[in-house]
Amino acid sequence: MEFTKEEKKALLDKMVAFRRERHKHPENGWTEFYATAAVIKELQALGIPYKFGRDVHTKEERMGVPDAGTLRACMDRAIAEGADPELVEAMEGGYTGCVAILDTGRPGPVSALRVDMDCNDVGETEDPEHYARKEGFASVHPNLMHACGHDAHTAIGVGVATALAGRLDGLCGRILIIFQPAEEGVRGGESMAKSGILDGVNYLFGGHVGAGKELGVCTGGSKEHAFTYKLDLKFTGEAAHAGGSPEKGNNAALAAATALIGCYSISRHSKGYSRVNIGAGRFGPGRNVICDEAVLIGEVRGQTEEINEYMYNRVLEVCRGAAAMYNCSFECQLKGHAIDAECDREMVELAIECAKGIEGITSMTDFSKEAGGGGAEDVCFMMKEVQRQGGKATYMSLGAGGRGPHHNTHFHIEEDIMLPAAELYCNMFEKLNSADKTE
Amino acid sequence: MEFTKEEKKALLDKMVAFRRERHKHPENGWTEFYATAAVIKELQALGIPYKFGRDVHTKEERMGVPDAGTLRACMDRAIAEGADPELVEAMEGGYTGCVAILDTGRPGPVSALRVDMDCNDVGETEDPEHYARKEGFASVHPNLMHACGHDAHTAIGVGVATALAGRLDGLCGRILIIFQPAEEGVRGGESMAKSGILDGVNYLFGGHVGAGKELGVCTGGSKEHAFTYKLDLKFTGEAAHAGGSPEKGNNAALAAATALIGCYSISRHSKGYSRVNIGAGRFGPGRNVICDEAVLIGEVRGQTEEINEYMYNRVLEVCRGAAAMYNCSFECQLKGHAIDAECDREMVELAIECAKGIEGITSMTDFSKEAGGGGAEDVCFMMKEVQRQGGKATYMSLGAGGRGPHHNTHFHIEEDIMLPAAELYCNMFEKLNSADKTE
Amino acid sequence: MEFTKEEKKALLDKMVAFRRERHKHPENGWTEFYATAAVIKELQALGIPYKFGRDVHTKEERMGVPDAGTLRACMDRAIAEGADPELVEAMEGGYTGCVAILDTGRPGPVSALRVDMDCNDVGETEDPEHYARKEGFASVHPNLMHACGHDAHTAIGVGVATALAGRLDGLCGRILIIFQPAEEGVRGGESMAKSGILDGVNYLFGGHVGAGKELGVCTGGSKEHAFTYKLDLKFTGEAAHAGGSPEKGNNAALAAATALIGCYSISRHSKGYSRVNIGAGRFGPGRNVICDEAVLIGEVRGQTEEINEYMYNRVLEVCRGAAAMYNCSFECQLKGHAIDAECDREMVELAIECAKGIEGITSMTDFSKEAGGGGAEDVCFMMKEVQRQGGKATYMSLGAGGRGPHHNTHFHIEEDIMLPAAELYCNMFEKLNSADKTE
Amino acid sequence: MEFTKEEKKALLDKMVAFRRERHKHPENGWTEFYATAAVIKELQALGIPYKFGRDVHTKEERMGVPDAGTLRACMDRAIAEGADPELVEAMEGGYTGCVAILDTGRPGPVSALRVDMDCNDVGETEDPEHYARKEGFASVHPNLMHACGHDAHTAIGVGVATALAGRLDGLCGRILIIFQPAEEGVRGGESMAKSGILDGVNYLFGGHVGAGKELGVCTGGSKEHAFTYKLDLKFTGEAAHAGGSPEKGNNAALAAATALIGCYSISRHSKGYSRVNIGAGRFGPGRNVICDEAVLIGEVRGQTEEINEYMYNRVLEVCRGAAAMYNCSFECQLKGHAIDAECDREMVELAIECAKGIEGITSMTDFSKEAGGGGAEDVCFMMKEVQRQGGKATYMSLGAGGRGPHHNTHFHIEEDIMLPAAELYCNMFEKLNSADKTE
Repeated sequence: MEFTKEEKKALLDKMVAFRRERHKHPENGWTEFYATAAVIKELQALGIPYKFGRDVHTKEERMGVPDAGTLRACMDRAIAEGADPELVEAMEGGYTGCVAILDTGRPGPVSALRVDMDCNDVGETEDPEHYARKEGFASVHPNLMHACGHDAHTAIGVGVATALAGRLDGLCGRILIIFQPAEEGVRGGESMAKSGILDGVNYLFGGHVGAGKELGVCTGGSKEHAFTYKLDLKFTGEAAHAGGSPEKGNNAALAAATALIGCYSISRHSKGYSRVNIGAGRFGPGRNVICDEAVLIGEVRGQTEEINEYMYNRVLEVCRGAAAMYNCSFECQLKGHAIDAECDREMVELAIECAKGIEGITSMTDFSKEAGGGGAEDVCFMMKEVQRQGGKATYMSLGAGGRGPHHNTHFHIEEDIMLPAAELYCNMFEKLNSADKTE
Repeated sequence: MEFTKEEKKALLDKMVAFRRERHKHPENGWTEFYATAAVIKELQALGIPYKFGRDVHTKEERMGVPDAGTLRACMDRAIAEGADPELVEAMEGGYTGCVAILDTGRPGPVSALRVDMDCNDVGETEDPEHYARKEGFASVHPNLMHACGHDAHTAIGVGVATALAGRLDGLCGRILIIFQPAEEGVRGGESMAKSGILDGVNYLFGGHVGAGKELGVCTGGSKEHAFTYKLDLKFTGEAAHAGGSPEKGNNAALAAATALIGCYSISRHSKGYSRVNIGAGRFGPGRNVICDEAVLIGEVRGQTEEINEYMYNRVLEVCRGAAAMYNCSFECQLKGHAIDAECDREMVELAIECAKGIEGITSMTDFSKEAGGGGAEDVCFMMKEVQRQGGKATYMSLGAGGRGPHHNTHFHIEEDIMLPAAELYCNMFEKLNSADKTE
Repeated sequence: MEFTKEEKKALLDKMVAFRRERHKHPENGWTEFYATAAVIKELQALGIPYKFGRDVHTKEERMGVPDAGTLRACMDRAIAEGADPELVEAMEGGYTGCVAILDTGRPGPVSALRVDMDCNDVGETEDPEHYARKEGFASVHPNLMHACGHDAHTAIGVGVATALAGRLDGLCGRILIIFQPAEEGVRGGESMAKSGILDGVNYLFGGHVGAGKELGVCTGGSKEHAFTYKLDLKFTGEAAHAGGSPEKGNNAALAAATALIGCYSISRHSKGYSRVNIGAGRFGPGRNVICDEAVLIGEVRGQTEEINEYMYNRVLEVCRGAAAMYNCSFECQLKGHAIDAECDREMVELAIECAKGIEGITSMTDFSKEAGGGGAEDVCFMMKEVQRQGGKATYMSLGAGGRGPHHNTHFHIEEDIMLPAAELYCNMFEKLNSADKTE
Repeated sequence: MEFTKEEKKALLDKMVAFRRERHKHPENGWTEFYATAAVIKELQALGIPYKFGRDVHTKEERMGVPDAGTLRACMDRAIAEGADPELVEAMEGGYTGCVAILDTGRPGPVSALRVDMDCNDVGETEDPEHYARKEGFASVHPNLMHACGHDAHTAIGVGVATALAGRLDGLCGRILIIFQPAEEGVRGGESMAKSGILDGVNYLFGGHVGAGKELGVCTGGSKEHAFTYKLDLKFTGEAAHAGGSPEKGNNAALAAATALIGCYSISRHSKGYSRVNIGAGRFGPGRNVICDEAVLIGEVRGQTEEINEYMYNRVLEVCRGAAAMYNCSFECQLKGHAIDAECDREMVELAIECAKGIEGITSMTDFSKEAGGGGAEDVCFMMKEVQRQGGKATYMSLGAGGRGPHHNTHFHIEEDIMLPAAELYCNMFEKLNSADKTE
């Protein structure tokens, strides 16, 4: 797609401003009220139709949604910071995220770009040399920070919408831009994938900026995303006075501690790597009371779906048995889920083709030479859903310079990456939905 | 000691008002800023000299003192509720409590009454039938409540000071009224006992109101207080990414869970009852990180000092070993300590003698017929200190009607018990410090 | 009962010879084939009727019976050492023990003496100064030794039968002498108590020699026998190659280790002492195989029946839960059971009365001044059964000098105690079944 | 090397007879007294010099040597079965195995064949259809069986010695045939590799028969042998009466159970597979005694040396910490050790070359297509030692038909494999030590 130098500059300026606004007001999973409202305002200004709220999510229970009080506080914060109250209220219950729908009016394929929107539970560094602080757009929300670049992803989504808004004439079919909430903790992808928004989608793509990776070094695909479940394991017993009648209690702390150790003792798997971690937890109520409630916060991972399911099922067995040892009840809440999905070679090659000639993309190969990091990415649920319908999908990597690692208080990317990324996505839509593909 | 009907009414009215003010503004251990300032105001009004702040506490580290931020917030709250800011600031660091010193100017014995001041970490019931709520003096501090009657104890101390203030002529020696903070969690008693305020004390006594016990049914002594240590057990490891390089972590959650189970598995003791409880705790930081910090909140108890020390030392061994298993470091913080002390028969008999003829004391025996409850009471440190110097001591039980059990959201005592209690204490001082005992 | 000096000497000589024969050929629980056959030979010689084999045991499954191969080997050993093969074969299945029945032919009460017969799983010391070794009657069975004096008990039973055989004329009713097997591990008492041999018994008594207690210092009763269950806890999983496919195994070693620790962590009981021990165990099969079978050998004890049942039920819960954690099955085999029974004051006083004038009994009080040792004694099942029918019972202590503690490789008693013990028992039968009690 | 049909038949007959004699009298690690004596008898008959006893083993402590009593019993058994008593006595201490030295007298390279000799701790099936039973050469030693084919390996070694004895004229340098004991449990290889017998060796090779693999299908190399340590973990505490004074004990069962679970909870390693197993163990002494001794029998494995060392060191930390928790002492005995070694391509290709034309070898590739089984083979210590000196080595796989899996009670190989195996080895020696290589 052709852009003049001025168009490019305007596009980058718009994306930088939008990204910094998001970075300054980070919102974590299912609370992206302000970000969603801001995206919708842009779409409205561009005259692009959209869907949002309950229309873009599963009717089933979603994983890892905060409690009502937290959601309310986040809604109030968003409104206080300038979000349209009506839009915010329409997302009550944490139904954040939206889908822009650019319809050419001509028959043709349906293509979709997916970007994510949420921040991390990390406090941004006070270091005055930190770029966002120096430039005055560091997070104003304590313990929240865009330390994974989703602010840039959202901005790129807005940039692509802006660029395409006036260029639909040469295209056919429909183009979707999916703004997904709650990628951290892998919660939002499955919900959107099951919502129906992907019905009829022929092509899906997206990409992730890589902080600390050389600027402009990109791949058209990725692989070996981890299979994982995020789990909250809750043990409920019976309180009793620890000095006066300890035998009357059912000790949830003993059940949980036994379960915790038991989880780590789950057998290694001969067919590939497996992981289990109980990284946090709490129990109580107090020093001289037999503990009646304990919560373990953990996860399992597996190199394959089989191993991940094995780990998940073994954790449940271990916890149920440990609870029974101490006459406690046990409940497992699923807080996140991710799977792997394979990138289609056709889409990887399209990405490589479309990258050619873009200033700012210094190299574009198929897959990274390094082994898959084992990270989880819930775009895979969308890829699988599209592939299930016979469509094709890929997920790219975009070297963004700056400083890693991800999820770190000093996380930083060079904003320049947003322009070639937007161009790349536009080129891909141009190829996928070129007028000669009209049916 | 003789009181007219009017004097009695005035005394009870004063104690009831003072008690209700405390009940409405409960303060937990080491934060009794408002209560101490209120007592001192009364002493000033009565012209009674007093000591407070660092002068009435040990120079060593005290157990279970809240952190500086919490203390500051409690000081601000006390001032906002009406406490004298100067007095409050003088108690900075949580040096609450005070000692009233009534000096007859004549040589003679030194006698001391001990009362305690702190509330429980319990939220008061919203039940409209609850007496304190009906009468409008229920706690206005969330999750804090006088559910053990220390508000009444403090009021009785003030009542005794009031009654004695004008009656020193017939007496000799010195009389102390010790207002002790932080009895809950057994923290303040040892600190005051080691401060020097008991130097030269010949007689020490005190008593505890019993909610749910028949009003006016009292004993002149008590026995079988539990030996106990309150412990915070902290494990520090090394964080690592649970998916990417779990082997680089040192897992503090595994160390703590192993220690927790290990504590419960400490052998029973053949010479008497033993207890151990880890009733609360927390670990973190997060789901996908190898845990690097875990804290267990617990206690041990023993029927004898030997058993209590056995349990304490075994807990330390268990925790040190468990930490070593997982390459973690371990630290134990002592948060409370209580011992038993035997009541001197001479003092028990004095109490029985002095109770005779007091309206509102329906019976007064030596010890309760029931076996000792195994509860902890840190007045024992003071009793032991006085006995070590050759003095005598006792701790009484005062049936107060109302509703038990102690430490419960519905705790309630009949305020009428305060008058006979004050009279009893006055009578005891009258006997112990009668002018004919002048040296 | 009157005995001439010659009669006494003959009686003691007979008992010493019989006891030494038993000591030399010790047999542990349910394998007392030689001992039983030897007793029966004596009864036959004295013309006393008797019951044995399945007639003196419960029809239900008995606890802690060795496997068929072990029983067979013990039977062969007994025969090789001189036991009557026909008698031995009649006890196939481990139905050892017998009951001598001395019937006066006159109506009257039924009185019973109970003695036990089995040895300990202890190897006798090689120390040449050890009495049994010096005198040439040390155990010839490896790892088996009469280290609790049951050899003397059996001999006393034979002595009493000998003494009474010619003295029934002055008596009425019936007299039983119960030779009980498998007291160690508390297995035989319950079996005999449920067999019907006690039907109609009005009085039951017995006694235990005390090694290391002053010779001749006796008590007419005993108290505070422990409530206990002896348990074998078996976990069965699934083997797998530990290197090749560990995830296919169900790890019985992990289940058993978790259960073991869990058992020790069972809450202390506020109403009295409790105990749990897993003192031995084994698992396998081998180093590089996921373990598929583990056995824990343990016991619980309680100060009261309630506490003992509490401990037993908690052990089962703990084990079932631990097995479930690792997909293993669990089975508990009851290997022993003991209860407490109260001695009837009437019987204690009878014992004191009957001891008067017996040479060799230097003192006879009601109960030992020391607190109950908490030892288990399954005569209590017989006492309870007799008391249930309205009868009376006691169990005495007979100081026997020598060297303790019991169950020790150097255990030694002075054989002289057997004569006064036999006289005491005869006197008690004389009183209980004196002709004037004929109905 | 050329053999007539008659020579071949004689060679096979000799190997079959020798192998069956070994199979009938299996000896496990460090007790191969009869087998070693039988090999030496053959070497003496062939006039081949040899070394044995302490001369072929390390001066350091060897791993997994049975206790003196067991060794003595095995020596007596060997002598009783026909082994030369003088030879057997010379191997006292379990110094089994020997090295045949065929010296051409001409300068040239030193080449070595390694075969192993010990059996498994497995009882041979009673199944009458089992080949060894049908042919009358099943094991006569209970619970011992050649279930890994080392009997055939030893026989092949004897066969090669026999074949070469008369054919040294066309060769140069020296040829060694190393008969290694104690390969099971990976104990003997390291000892011989450190003994000096490999000094100056230029080429080393050997091979393993594969039961259940197609007869004659071979590979010239192997790969991915596991790194492993075999460990006996011993915990020593203090016994005490479980009912009477449990607090006096130091519970080795609790220490061992905690260690066992702790071992399984050692973190997975991000750089490759890791394994840990505690497959067997025992503790005691008895039901009502606080356990004072517990032994865990286990192993660790790792995909790399780093991971294996990580697992080993973590096991030691876990055990030391668990012992400290319960005041026990801990000792680890190394019972086996294996490493990986890479086969030299030059040697693999030599094997392929030499296999050409041998009847009975149906295919010969470089490596198996299947991934490395992760099995351990202590020939790797010898390979590494030769390679350290600049030499070359390989270890081959020889499909032997019959029935697998290895270490199974029904293990069976087709004896025909021994002839082509011997021919292959002879051909390799012929090439490596051909006269034209004389220096």
